[in-house]
Amino acid sequence: MSVVSDGMPRSFETAPERYRHWRLAVDGRVARLTLAVDEAGALTEGVPLKRNSYDLGVDIELRDVVQRLRFEHPEVGCVIVDSALSEVFCAGANIGMLARSSHPLKVNFCKLTNETRFEIEDATRAGQRWIAALSGTASGGGYELALACDRILLVDDRRAAVSLPELPLLAVLPGTGGLTRLVDKRAVRRDLADVFCTLEEGVRAPRALVEGLVDAIAKPSLFDELVQREVEAALAAAGPPPEADGVRLESLDPQVSEGELAYRHVTVSLSAESRTASITLRMPAKPNLLVGLRLARELDDAVLRLRFHYPELGLWLVRTQGDPTDVRALDAALGGASWFAREVRALLGRVLKRVENSARSSFALVEPGSCFSGTLLELALAADRVYMLRGVAQAPAFELSARNRGAYRMANGQTRLETRFTGHADRLNAVLDVPDGVPLDAERALALGLITEAPDAIDWDDSVRVAIEERASFSPDALTGLEASLRFPGPETLESKVFARLTAWQNWIFQRPNASGPDGALRAYGRPKRAKFDWKRT
Amino acid sequence: MSVVSDGMPRSFETAPERYRHWRLAVDGRVARLTLAVDEAGALTEGVPLKRNSYDLGVDIELRDVVQRLRFEHPEVGCVIVDSALSEVFCAGANIGMLARSSHPLKVNFCKLTNETRFEIEDATRAGQRWIAALSGTASGGGYELALACDRILLVDDRRAAVSLPELPLLAVLPGTGGLTRLVDKRAVRRDLADVFCTLEEGVRAPRALVEGLVDAIAKPSLFDELVQREVEAALAAAGPPPEADGVRLESLDPQVSEGELAYRHVTVSLSAESRTASITLRMPAKPNLLVGLRLARELDDAVLRLRFHYPELGLWLVRTQGDPTDVRALDAALGGASWFAREVRALLGRVLKRVENSARSSFALVEPGSCFSGTLLELALAADRVYMLRGVAQAPAFELSARNRGAYRMANGQTRLETRFTGHADRLNAVLDVPDGVPLDAERALALGLITEAPDAIDWDDSVRVAIEERASFSPDALTGLEASLRFPGPETLESKVFARLTAWQNWIFQRPNASGPDGALRAYGRPKRAKFDWKRT
Repeated sequence: MSVVSDGMPRSFETAPERYRHWRLAVDGRVARLTLAVDEAGALTEGVPLKRNSYDLGVDIELRDVVQRLRFEHPEVGCVIVDSALSEVFCAGANIGMLARSSHPLKVNFCKLTNETRFEIEDATRAGQRWIAALSGTASGGGYELALACDRILLVDDRRAAVSLPELPLLAVLPGTGGLTRLVDKRAVRRDLADVFCTLEEGVRAPRALVEGLVDAIAKPSLFDELVQREVEAALAAAGPPPEADGVRLESLDPQVSEGELAYRHVTVSLSAESRTASITLRMPAKPNLLVGLRLARELDDAVLRLRFHYPELGLWLVRTQGDPTDVRALDAALGGASWFAREVRALLGRVLKRVENSARSSFALVEPGSCFSGTLLELALAADRVYMLRGVAQAPAFELSARNRGAYRMANGQTRLETRFTGHADRLNAVLDVPDGVPLDAERALALGLITEAPDAIDWDDSVRVAIEERASFSPDALTGLEASLRFPGPETLESKVFARLTAWQNWIFQRPNASGPDGALRAYGRPKRAKFDWKRT
Repeated sequence: MSVVSDGMPRSFETAPERYRHWRLAVDGRVARLTLAVDEAGALTEGVPLKRNSYDLGVDIELRDVVQRLRFEHPEVGCVIVDSALSEVFCAGANIGMLARSSHPLKVNFCKLTNETRFEIEDATRAGQRWIAALSGTASGGGYELALACDRILLVDDRRAAVSLPELPLLAVLPGTGGLTRLVDKRAVRRDLADVFCTLEEGVRAPRALVEGLVDAIAKPSLFDELVQREVEAALAAAGPPPEADGVRLESLDPQVSEGELAYRHVTVSLSAESRTASITLRMPAKPNLLVGLRLARELDDAVLRLRFHYPELGLWLVRTQGDPTDVRALDAALGGASWFAREVRALLGRVLKRVENSARSSFALVEPGSCFSGTLLELALAADRVYMLRGVAQAPAFELSARNRGAYRMANGQTRLETRFTGHADRLNAVLDVPDGVPLDAERALALGLITEAPDAIDWDDSVRVAIEERASFSPDALTGLEASLRFPGPETLESKVFARLTAWQNWIFQRPNASGPDGALRAYGRPKRAKFDWKRT
């Protein structure tokens, strides 16, 4: 049932000692991350990763670095990203790989790379400021990687440029948020951004500085000095480091079999027949922050495997098991002021966003033995629907904690409770008035609007089964569009705009013959023939 | 070069005496608009418009009604929309028509119907409150039409329902903003909205009321009374009517030839060879508000013809001609407090949004003889780029008026100046500090950031020609996605979310084989065979 084809990674785990494409050097409070792509190391056979171009394998390593810096090197206050090549920072996503990727692989690749870019911005906000040091040209996804950094420094050597050449060269959009970051994050004027995105060769240092495409420039002989000044400014802004060693990210190594992904605290049952995946989180007794970290990482890894390897399992059924007392203990620890508590909270927040950002339906099933409390309640609030068994003697645990009141924000900048009760301040306040740890039975949860349906024991099996079968029968594409529209009422942010507005347009363009057809620009790239376009504007 | 095929209207003009699908009755302050679709009146041959289902022809009439009510009946404070059929309000867009429409026609149809829904909401805000009186079932686009009204009343007869069955029946999304209006306008809880959108049969009155899908319900014998009470409340809220007669909307009747659309004040030159349309607005001497109205309507009509009939003309070149003194005079009149000044301003605002919402590139060309002043300056601010000739003795007019400071808001809720200078309050203030009517030469306009490039007379022809040729050579699809991303930095609104997030997903879904392929749901609808889906979620 799983899809592990050409271009598809078998695992999303790695570690610095196994990196093929990045070099990480940590020196006190400064980390230097150098892109040195191994041309022969592509996931797709026969696609050389020239000029520091990347594929999913390169980005899986980047995701690993970003996470490890947060947990293993909390003392780091500044991350310099640079390149091992002299004239090229990064040429972006490899075109040969893109041209040979299926539509779902292209879309999933873009989504994961986008999520990692937001993790970089998240790190910067949390005190690890990322600086892109471009001593050579950054084009396409290479410039988009720089756009995700807090500062962009470009060498002024009359050659190095920044560019987003996707539209003129490939008839697609920059795939990792470049357009939105240009006008929304860097506030580049829309007409200048329009011109910039049509220039194959991009823009060199002096003009890039004037237009706001980069933050600072320097001649080659002064470039190291510029980087050094920026690092010092970043460290001064970051404040003192936490007085603690980091926490090593251990390997997860799930047991993968035909019907199951088994982690220590998370189990995923895979059913090809019903096209569903059942995700169960088990809360161990007396959990500490290390358990919270492991739980978050296991769920994250499971979500990525489900996205990439099991595309036909369109519905995720989310369950929890455990004693709510233990979740309360974990939530109390997560409320701590230490760097580690803050980092585990932040990771849990990102994992929850990854669940919502997945092109899968999700139903939370609240049954006896559940512990949808506090942090785990967020899984129910992130689901498209919540079914809770009504009228049993031992009611499933369903309760709030302080963590539901602001710790985990959605891509739209709001808490899940705020989003759920958009336009109904009275209903939101009624929920917020419920004290932490008060168990809510199904009637109360239904009345408060926290769950969708509450069948009793007689109806439960049929109600849930029908809902699941029906969901699994609908068009996968229409569900993706429906969920992208209903999950995010209220305001939009840079992040929600990238995953909705920009991504939706890109998905459309990826399907169009002008890009992906036999005569489309992605296929024609690098060959003598030119792309043939249907000129109709739509 | 023009495309007038099956399903395509030849003209976007109509008038009440020619309506085939709507009956309009105005009685004092109340208008009753009754949907009575002529089954035999479809634009697509052999597609009967059963059960008050609609096609573009029905919606062209609706657009006409909405505009005429504003101008010809300013005394109207309440519009009741109902149906001539006893058990059906409206069955939404006709599926046979959709299944037989090309992708561009589907997309353009949805865009125009969406724009008209926002015009209805605009009318409600301006004091003509729309009430949907559903004495029968409103499904799909029929319920979406109701969602665009201020109030939705549903008969409680155990049969009538509201529904959005597009996803389960057709594997597409509701096409006229329904999903966004459910959760953002009506604040229906996201999980209830999720369930609602999967119910083919929809939801009947009592449950619809509880979930916020409608505003009021009544038994059949009490329904007219309910409508009457709502009308009285609407009129009380609307305040006293303006003390004036309406203004008749005269016919535009452009001269259409192979190479030109010629209106009184607007001329469009059509070049198939260069794939461009040159739009020139001429400001007559001593214009009054009637001229402003005519100008707005001509430009609006030209935009619709260009969208539907000339899809291969991907670049619009926008020019103005006239004496800026005359534009200043028109802008002074537009600043008036009368109902008519307010309505012409509102119409101009909607036309400008329609330009920005078109899947075409636009360059404003500021040459000698131009009058990009005040209201007409908005055309330059709406363009993707502005080219202005530098260093000529008789500088082209380029100047602000009070109208640039808040009269015309973009779909994102901001003025075009605010949007242009997103994130740069200093630059915005520098522009706002320029007094009204001060002519800006090319150097000053460039320094202020109001134009993109200012070539001198020696470079002008080459610079502009190269930019035009280059633009016309790019992939039409990628340009549409690029422009949708760069034109709207900053906040999002219900309107911008419908045209970006929701529309982009729908465009993607419309292309997917699960909806539009030979075995897709749109083709299978109404036939014995069921749609076959590729189950991969993307």
